Amino acid sequence: MKILILPDSFKGSLTSSQAAAQIESAARKVFPEAQIESFPIADGGEGTLEMVQKAAGGAFLPIEVMGPCGQRVRSRYLSIGETAIVELAEAAGLGLRLPGFSPMKTTTIGLGQIIAEALHVGHRRIVIALGGSATTDCGCGMAAALGTQFLDEAGRPFLPTGATLSMVRGIRLNGFFFGKNAPGIEALCDVDNPLYGPQGAACVFGPQKGATPEEVKVLDAGLKNIADLFQKRAAKLNTLKGAGAAGGTGAGVAAFLNGRLLSGIDALLDLMKFEEAAKTADLIITGEGAVDAQTKGGKVAAGIARRAGGKPVVLFTGANMLGEKELNALYELGITAVLPILQKPTTLGEAMADAKTNLHLAALNFFRAQQMLGLGAR
Amino acid sequence: MKILILPDSFKGSLTSSQAAAQIESAARKVFPEAQIESFPIADGGEGTLEMVQKAAGGAFLPIEVMGPCGQRVRSRYLSIGETAIVELAEAAGLGLRLPGFSPMKTTTIGLGQIIAEALHVGHRRIVIALGGSATTDCGCGMAAALGTQFLDEAGRPFLPTGATLSMVRGIRLNGFFFGKNAPGIEALCDVDNPLYGPQGAACVFGPQKGATPEEVKVLDAGLKNIADLFQKRAAKLNTLKGAGAAGGTGAGVAAFLNGRLLSGIDALLDLMKFEEAAKTADLIITGEGAVDAQTKGGKVAAGIARRAGGKPVVLFTGANMLGEKELNALYELGITAVLPILQKPTTLGEAMADAKTNLHLAALNFFRAQQMLGLGAR
Repeated sequence: MKILILPDSFKGSLTSSQAAAQIESAARKVFPEAQIESFPIADGGEGTLEMVQKAAGGAFLPIEVMGPCGQRVRSRYLSIGETAIVELAEAAGLGLRLPGFSPMKTTTIGLGQIIAEALHVGHRRIVIALGGSATTDCGCGMAAALGTQFLDEAGRPFLPTGATLSMVRGIRLNGFFFGKNAPGIEALCDVDNPLYGPQGAACVFGPQKGATPEEVKVLDAGLKNIADLFQKRAAKLNTLKGAGAAGGTGAGVAAFLNGRLLSGIDALLDLMKFEEAAKTADLIITGEGAVDAQTKGGKVAAGIARRAGGKPVVLFTGANMLGEKELNALYELGITAVLPILQKPTTLGEAMADAKTNLHLAALNFFRAQQMLGLGAR
Repeated sequence: MKILILPDSFKGSLTSSQAAAQIESAARKVFPEAQIESFPIADGGEGTLEMVQKAAGGAFLPIEVMGPCGQRVRSRYLSIGETAIVELAEAAGLGLRLPGFSPMKTTTIGLGQIIAEALHVGHRRIVIALGGSATTDCGCGMAAALGTQFLDEAGRPFLPTGATLSMVRGIRLNGFFFGKNAPGIEALCDVDNPLYGPQGAACVFGPQKGATPEEVKVLDAGLKNIADLFQKRAAKLNTLKGAGAAGGTGAGVAAFLNGRLLSGIDALLDLMKFEEAAKTADLIITGEGAVDAQTKGGKVAAGIARRAGGKPVVLFTGANMLGEKELNALYELGITAVLPILQKPTTLGEAMADAKTNLHLAALNFFRAQQMLGLGAR
């Protein structure tokens, strides 16, 4: 018997790895001999490399690059045949932020260095996992490391960071990314935010990266300046889905590298060859913090269900907000059952604090029922 | 495929019939061709006759008796071979209480009339389902109809009701119930309360039967008086398990009719020949309002699990208060899985108000998982 476990995070209470660990440990208690494989969903954010490598193999290649604060950073990327999977967090992640560095000064240059190296050794396709960045430089550092030139009002090239995005007056793109033999560049975006404005990268994510309210204004204006410079070329740079991911690096990938922005889950399922794994599975388990009106349209569970090839997909959740009619729509997508993990009446806060225990108990009882009722006999 | 559904009530939110209906309708949606049988657990209380008849057959025999307020009542009992099943609620139930009648004046005489008739036509075993009574007469009415004499201080026989229990000075038992050929008398008690005192029949259940606080005091003293009269014979009449059931009728059955008091669920499972039904079941479903430290020791779910012969027993509940270690003890009893029905974080009040919908959704998703995961293939 084979069980695949692919939960999303339970936002505010469990990371996807924590969720997977609880489900997996419950499964092992009940089915010690089963083949159980966990792939915590990192839909474009941190942890993507590990997840893809676990599912699809490939080799980690080490590389030393410049970190978000100018320091040296030992980084790596994942090579699978012609494809290189690059994770922004490994070169410019929040975990690499040094004291005193707000996104006014941090840079994605290290991400560009990894991409340059991966292209140099022959990869023809680069998949960039955005998310978890310490930067709001619109991906200018990345682009500069790949031959894009940013010019000031005197026409002199310089390396923009968040603080100086507004000083960019001209951009010379690197034709390599726009020519006939251009490599395939794709970015997995973990958020849908626009580039600038109240829902943009600076206003929504700037503060958690250390930006003061004053700095957020400067960053936001800087991001808008870059978008304005592209007005003729790509009118919709601001509202491109994922433009605001990783401090505007989403927009930068599209504008400077001619790349495609992809929503995390589908691209991730592609990379991990999900359909193949599902084919031999008896049971697929996913999870998310809340099942609501958005669940059907997007997100992890629906993406998995649509591609499970008719295999049972069970969805654990912290809260089911849907009635029977709306649940029927999920069932039609391929979700077999929606199983809330709550054990007793509690406040939202208590429920989130107890999420780990609750998920374990819910999974344990679910697997026990399966064991007695047929699955165990396979 | 055969599914047995035997929920207890979810106290304060769902009767056992309502709970069974939600589980059954969910099961029918998923398994339209399954043999699904519901036996809402009436563990000694109202509804016992129907439940036993559904499970074990037998014939309903009509009889007209005196109701709790002296009115004429069309009643009935269930005859299965030598055994008559008699339900107190059919002769002296709360539903038969007339305006202006507090338990000071109500009587169980009709119950005694049914028992007399059942014995008269040849039944050798009488099973009395207590619970749901409009009376607090310690079963004196019942006993009087069966030949027990209650004497006042002048030595004159009279029929005591709640108000006059304290006036009883002597009791002449009917030797028929204590002789060699005495019939088997059993009472199914739905509560464990003692006869009198703060947890006794008058204090706890008197108010819901219409007794004022002053009347409760009179009733409690009256119940104590009867127990005191039996001090020598049956020292523990007060604390006999079930003595306080049905306004002290439990104690009356023991004292006046030499009967045995049984806890509801085990006797009920006997009557319905539960083991036979379980033998051909693929899945047994029960339910109770809360799973807590008491669940293991008593109550419906544990009783069912112990006697399910290893068949899967799934327990739906409004709230699981137990951790994994304590749940393991339930698993060892034979409970396969404890499945809380909550859909989202809520207050206890909201959870109880939503219990019907929540149980339906939880059952629906449970059955859907079973359908996809093996049970459906049987």
